[in-house]
Amino acid sequence: MTEEKPETASAPGQNTVLIGRKPVMNYVVACLTFLNSGAKQIIVKARGRAISRAVDTVELLRRTFAKDLEVKSINIGTEEIERAEGQKSNVSTIEITLERP
Amino acid sequence: MTEEKPETASAPGQNTVLIGRKPVMNYVVACLTFLNSGAKQIIVKARGRAISRAVDTVELLRRTFAKDLEVKSINIGTEEIERAEGQKSNVSTIEITLERP
Repeated sequence: MTEEKPETASAPGQNTVLIGRKPVMNYVVACLTFLNSGAKQIIVKARGRAISRAVDTVELLRRTFAKDLEVKSINIGTEEIERAEGQKSNVSTIEITLERP
Repeated sequence: MTEEKPETASAPGQNTVLIGRKPVMNYVVACLTFLNSGAKQIIVKARGRAISRAVDTVELLRRTFAKDLEVKSINIGTEEIERAEGQKSNVSTIEITLERP
């Protein structure tokens, strides 16, 4: 029996760093860990208020630690999330793809 | 005497909406005002924590009020700002260009 997975923008197995509420430096280190293990591409994702932190992460990374890293694409979107009370609300998302030449 | 202006990413005269701390809807209305006056292109700019709000503005605008609007480009960067005490610090920036087909 074969199992078909739904297609997603970033398949598991890709080097994705999901930005949350921790300090920016934590996410920079997560990106560097991927790069040091030989990754050629990293995807930085965030939702809602963490979007600013995602941009901070990418900028700090490119400015200080990985100057050859290129921003390949930036996509924004909206996700519908269901709250605990069953109400639905929309949250903005960002997905920044970085590549090493 | 001719006066030469330094080249900037977005020259004055273009339809720029600078995102600050007001509610998202205020900036959506600002964008709609430009569109209703015949603008074919709008640039939404933000710095620091307002970056999330810039993405919210664009998403709400495209989802609800101007569904034909296309995201032409998204650029991120860093600006050096000088604080009152003379200290310098870096702030992330975003510039989202929207176009009507």
